[in-house]
Amino acid sequence: MSEQLLVPQGFLFSACAAGLKASGRPDLALALVPDAASAAAMFTRNQIVAAPVTIGRSHLRASRGRVYALIVNAGNANCATGKQGLDAAKNVCTELARELNIEPAQVFPSSTGIIGVPLPTGKITASLSRLAVTAKSGLEAFDSFADAILTTDTRKKIACQTITRKGNMVTLTGVAKGAGMIHPNMATMLVYLFTDVAASPTELQRCLRGVVDETFNSISIDGDMSTNDTVLMLASGKSGVALKKARKEFERALKAVCRSLAQQIVADGEGVTHVVRLKIEQARTPGEARQVARAIANSPLVKTAWAGADPNWGRMLAAIGYSSVKINPSRISIFLGPLQICRDGAAWPFDKNAAHQYMMQSSYEIRIVLGGGKASLDFLSCDLTAEYVHINADYST
Amino acid sequence: MSEQLLVPQGFLFSACAAGLKASGRPDLALALVPDAASAAAMFTRNQIVAAPVTIGRSHLRASRGRVYALIVNAGNANCATGKQGLDAAKNVCTELARELNIEPAQVFPSSTGIIGVPLPTGKITASLSRLAVTAKSGLEAFDSFADAILTTDTRKKIACQTITRKGNMVTLTGVAKGAGMIHPNMATMLVYLFTDVAASPTELQRCLRGVVDETFNSISIDGDMSTNDTVLMLASGKSGVALKKARKEFERALKAVCRSLAQQIVADGEGVTHVVRLKIEQARTPGEARQVARAIANSPLVKTAWAGADPNWGRMLAAIGYSSVKINPSRISIFLGPLQICRDGAAWPFDKNAAHQYMMQSSYEIRIVLGGGKASLDFLSCDLTAEYVHINADYST
Repeated sequence: MSEQLLVPQGFLFSACAAGLKASGRPDLALALVPDAASAAAMFTRNQIVAAPVTIGRSHLRASRGRVYALIVNAGNANCATGKQGLDAAKNVCTELARELNIEPAQVFPSSTGIIGVPLPTGKITASLSRLAVTAKSGLEAFDSFADAILTTDTRKKIACQTITRKGNMVTLTGVAKGAGMIHPNMATMLVYLFTDVAASPTELQRCLRGVVDETFNSISIDGDMSTNDTVLMLASGKSGVALKKARKEFERALKAVCRSLAQQIVADGEGVTHVVRLKIEQARTPGEARQVARAIANSPLVKTAWAGADPNWGRMLAAIGYSSVKINPSRISIFLGPLQICRDGAAWPFDKNAAHQYMMQSSYEIRIVLGGGKASLDFLSCDLTAEYVHINADYST
Repeated sequence: MSEQLLVPQGFLFSACAAGLKASGRPDLALALVPDAASAAAMFTRNQIVAAPVTIGRSHLRASRGRVYALIVNAGNANCATGKQGLDAAKNVCTELARELNIEPAQVFPSSTGIIGVPLPTGKITASLSRLAVTAKSGLEAFDSFADAILTTDTRKKIACQTITRKGNMVTLTGVAKGAGMIHPNMATMLVYLFTDVAASPTELQRCLRGVVDETFNSISIDGDMSTNDTVLMLASGKSGVALKKARKEFERALKAVCRSLAQQIVADGEGVTHVVRLKIEQARTPGEARQVARAIANSPLVKTAWAGADPNWGRMLAAIGYSSVKINPSRISIFLGPLQICRDGAAWPFDKNAAHQYMMQSSYEIRIVLGGGKASLDFLSCDLTAEYVHINADYST
């Protein structure tokens, strides 16, 4: 495996400013697969889903997982927009399909941005022909795609891995949009994974499902779960390497790409100043470990203590106590990196200054040992800062 | 019923600064019942409970609900302090019992403040004799009690109701400590209800349980659930009126006192600038209504929108969608007071400026109509501000 940034074969990219973002920044992105790709996808578990999620799901079914084009807009989520919203998403796909001479169901749509405002379809369709004509292979075009899908993100999120099989190289390059509303149940974000491995949609889907649980479903920024979460993987087959001949290596590469994107999403969470890797150990089951991790990661009192680099283990203990997981308080230990700060559920003498210094790092680890079983889990979270409040207290008005 | 502030007969109060608060403010409070009171109590459902909760519970059992003294310290929660913490709580009760010539089990202890720091027992026991000697009836003494139990609260929380039965007046006066960590599952706080009604501990307990669910268990500030939550009701019997002769009036008075204290607790939540009364309507069950209310009330994205007086109904809709309650998105309506802002789960044209003005009020109402059944629920919550973060990011260090 190598980490150099490459773009897989068989894909073309373009982006433009269609006028959806008030800032005038690029907000419409296209990925084309002239010879079609196999597709696999996972979506939000929120019962309220955006129109493009509904349409995207139905298009994948109708096309049996064959995708020629992916069209993403930022600035408007096209969610809670009723029948009009569904029509708008369909309309965008139909117009793009006509432009490309393919079936509407072979287009996959995505939207991100504000909820409840009608999608300005006209602005999008007016830009489709220009996007189609200017789509290019290579890094620069890919980079413009990665940039145009962002909303309150402060930077692009890209990860790449390659594997070589009998002299042939397979490239897997992922791009993500994150920032707010990131929560473990299919973390709130858009993630697109492009690869030139050759695989059927079913093979791809199997691969993706296993990796998403360990990566994107194990992160949390504010505990909110979006209505638009989408992870889409497209495989062009252009490497000539079959997934079934390199399954293990490919899965390893996929996990590395997803883990890196998950980390980048948390690190760029709204107002985030500290990324905290929670290592839950000695839980009775992985599910209980995740429940404990979520209770800690979603506690405003814990997250504000992290913002202040405050080794306030009592708040973490209290969150474990209300996590609904049956625990024995007197067996719980908590470590800040190498530093034990709680033992047997009670105070343990530690160097407060060293603990504070450790927590001043932009990224660090907290280990929670439950003493109840053998299951463990890694979970990425972050602090809650005044900046988060400022960003979110003035979004739609 | 009347709302004038009175102190029930049969109680004496005192308070002092024992040196637990770094500020030097009063932090130790005593309530004495020279002829003993019947007691009823409800505690946190957090599995991690503070030592005084454990000891208080066991004292009520041992004394069969007869209490002569209540001793409360602020500045230290005596939680996650292990066996040493239990000994400390016992020690305080034993010393006070010796001072008063009663049994240790007839003393009820409470603590609030930082978690995981050993209780400075010496500072407390050194002040007990002074507290016992200076305990007085009347408003001024009661007021000093109400003041000494506060932590980050910015003001005292007191509510009073009286009822008259055949010329005899029953007084019920409650006092609370709230501020951070307030969450619906036995809201995180200390509440003491003093009354001179005559009742057995069993009768009192029955009364209390019903009222707590509708009041203190229906509020949320930050979604965190404390380790020390306690609601204690003491009845001296000195009014000469038996509870069983005036049950309905007494329960009404109790509900009014608890509702007022709950409202005061939310309004004084850390950094709170807006109190929001969520009215959940047409849920299938009261439990589901509560679950929807909690999802909304605990969403950082919703709470920051409230801070900005931003009528961002999409965030509320998204929270309803992940509440785990089965809903039909296309039947949901949302109202800001008289103003409809979402209909059938989609945008509904409304005057944004009027909505913003409505949300600028310090207290207002949001009505969520689920269109699924006949159950409804009132739930009190509040906004999440940068001030909340500032208060909590620098607490223990």
